[in-house]
Amino acid sequence: MTKKVLKFGGTSVGSIQRIVHAAKIVKKEHDSGNKIIVVVSAMAGTTNNLVAYSQSISKKFNKRELDVLLTSGEQVTSALMAGALNDLGIKAKSWMNWQIPILTEGDHTNARIINMNVEGINNYLSEGGVAVIPGFQGVSKSGDITSIGRGGSDATAVVIAKIFQTDSCELYKDVDGVYSSDPNKIPVAKKIDKISYEEMLELSSLGTKVMQASAVQTAMMNDVPIQVKSTFAERKGTEINSQENIDYSKAVTGVAYSKDDAKITLIGVEDKPGVAADIFEPLSKNEINVDMVIQNISADGKKTDLTFTIKRQDKNAASSLLKGNKKITYETMQMNDKVSKVSIVGAGMVATPGVTYKMFRSLAEEKINILAISTSEIKVSVIIDEESSIQAVKKLHKTFNLD
Amino acid sequence: MTKKVLKFGGTSVGSIQRIVHAAKIVKKEHDSGNKIIVVVSAMAGTTNNLVAYSQSISKKFNKRELDVLLTSGEQVTSALMAGALNDLGIKAKSWMNWQIPILTEGDHTNARIINMNVEGINNYLSEGGVAVIPGFQGVSKSGDITSIGRGGSDATAVVIAKIFQTDSCELYKDVDGVYSSDPNKIPVAKKIDKISYEEMLELSSLGTKVMQASAVQTAMMNDVPIQVKSTFAERKGTEINSQENIDYSKAVTGVAYSKDDAKITLIGVEDKPGVAADIFEPLSKNEINVDMVIQNISADGKKTDLTFTIKRQDKNAASSLLKGNKKITYETMQMNDKVSKVSIVGAGMVATPGVTYKMFRSLAEEKINILAISTSEIKVSVIIDEESSIQAVKKLHKTFNLD
Repeated sequence: MTKKVLKFGGTSVGSIQRIVHAAKIVKKEHDSGNKIIVVVSAMAGTTNNLVAYSQSISKKFNKRELDVLLTSGEQVTSALMAGALNDLGIKAKSWMNWQIPILTEGDHTNARIINMNVEGINNYLSEGGVAVIPGFQGVSKSGDITSIGRGGSDATAVVIAKIFQTDSCELYKDVDGVYSSDPNKIPVAKKIDKISYEEMLELSSLGTKVMQASAVQTAMMNDVPIQVKSTFAERKGTEINSQENIDYSKAVTGVAYSKDDAKITLIGVEDKPGVAADIFEPLSKNEINVDMVIQNISADGKKTDLTFTIKRQDKNAASSLLKGNKKITYETMQMNDKVSKVSIVGAGMVATPGVTYKMFRSLAEEKINILAISTSEIKVSVIIDEESSIQAVKKLHKTFNLD
Repeated sequence: MTKKVLKFGGTSVGSIQRIVHAAKIVKKEHDSGNKIIVVVSAMAGTTNNLVAYSQSISKKFNKRELDVLLTSGEQVTSALMAGALNDLGIKAKSWMNWQIPILTEGDHTNARIINMNVEGINNYLSEGGVAVIPGFQGVSKSGDITSIGRGGSDATAVVIAKIFQTDSCELYKDVDGVYSSDPNKIPVAKKIDKISYEEMLELSSLGTKVMQASAVQTAMMNDVPIQVKSTFAERKGTEINSQENIDYSKAVTGVAYSKDDAKITLIGVEDKPGVAADIFEPLSKNEINVDMVIQNISADGKKTDLTFTIKRQDKNAASSLLKGNKKITYETMQMNDKVSKVSIVGAGMVATPGVTYKMFRSLAEEKINILAISTSEIKVSVIIDEESSIQAVKKLHKTFNLD
């Protein structure tokens, strides 16, 4: 008998009709003789509405109470899912975080699941019951409700798969898997059958909406293979697994791009220890997320240029903070607020020479100017003018045989 | 130092603005040096929306899951209220039903609070904190979430006042008290300063929306005096207390009326034991609520007429059930689906002779025909044509010196 975790995301339980549809998927798996634990997100839109409520009370809404507030969303879906399963003739029951309990540690709104009591639920599964568990939440040692951050429902499913030693962890989403690029913009993008945690992590960080990076990381740390599947189409999804379980015939697995970036270059920054820290400290304190950072070796050992990218919405705040920063000196600040980051990702890259060169050559063929470059072991990212981003992605998709 | 329960109803916490307004009332009471326990309802409309969700999944939605579903509403308001108090600089914390815990017994959707742990909250109050508690809910001995029925948040406030031995129990509502009649329809209706539990119980049963009958009953059984106050106007409200604490200068305290009633008369029913039970059993099983029942002594000892009232929406179902009922015989069924019940209520009635006569005389002066009569110790109800109901209420309001 196979034990499975089936997790349904916010869009997959975004209406009563969709909850009933998801319940039918669960019924099918249950009727096939599997032991099923269901994990649910809040209905799409709910968490955002609740956050907006808290924000209109206070920009610094108490985090303990924010957790009490937000976790209500998954409580609602758990009850509706259990009720829908009952209506389909399935024995099913919702289990709140404190009823299991799901023990967490760490700060409010950003806790980690450290343990879970398995006995009650395992007994229930053995009696043929389906356990429905709200994602995204737990309870601290002091008995307070905690949440485990955005994407936390995926992470909950992964940890449950680990702790309950299930045979699979299936994430049902509004997409049918992970694609070699954004299928809405690049029609030739193809679904990837298997992808490594590391690649998925890069793709998530690069803006692929399929999974939050933190959830991928949880799966990687716990070595839990994940199936990403579509709630709305019966089709094979994408398997996310450790690298050794994947055959790499291609150097590049996917091409990602981000929108809404801005690039800032400080020219003539002093080249001495601590300068970068002095530059980025006020940005970090004001919650401005700095993405790529590129600093060249200085020609004269005294002055250098520093380039970094931020979200476009933060450009004015960042510019003011830099201008008002008494700790740093620079000659001029250049801002380009219409740039895109285009990245190729692939665990096969390590074993394939010339990937980086091939990327630059392809972009040159399209007469696309590269404004900045940053590389990691399984990723090469370039900053280019935003207007060329789709053209670049299409070209790279073809260059690396992903079409 | 005074200990108080302040309870805010659904309309009083119906928006973020209103929650903040309610928090300011709490702050004022807290700043005056009182120890405060706040009880909150779900935001107006929330519970109905959640019920509608469950109904669109199943007309017989699992009651355990319904409790999990509905109690999320007060969880949301508790967190928002605690956060709003924090934002006003008040130490405050929400306490979920299972965190206190609020122990209940009885069926899902209709449980009763039997105990509550006071230690943690009392310590918190002593440290100057405000405890915010979701109304309407508790947890059973087996650890399941339970709800205590509609009007349950008022009942929660009453039980908390009892168990925590508070000095007052103040229910903040969208009305500023209990009126001698519906102030929207009878402009001369006056706010009642003091009313007994018994009278309030009759008025609640007769459709006065101020408090659910079950909550009044809880207050009466526990002998907890209640203050009904307006959230939106600083004004003296209505005190609900035991009869001995009230001076009765008037025989009648209030005039109530119900709308949407229908009257059914069965003519020529067999006059033998068990007939009434046979008539009402199928109605009860189909959840058709029978209100007034009037049966006259039969003239010949063989046949009699039986009149009863139901909600108008149930008239077709009731009619079919009666026609299909093989256990009973009658000559004809008369249905009048446009009737109203008008009632005078007053604990002073017992000591004042002629109240009933005076009521009938007043209605006769207005040429209003009485279709049926039912009396209790502190109430006289008559069924009349619906079109005369406002006229009747106005006349009785004047007759009994309530204007």
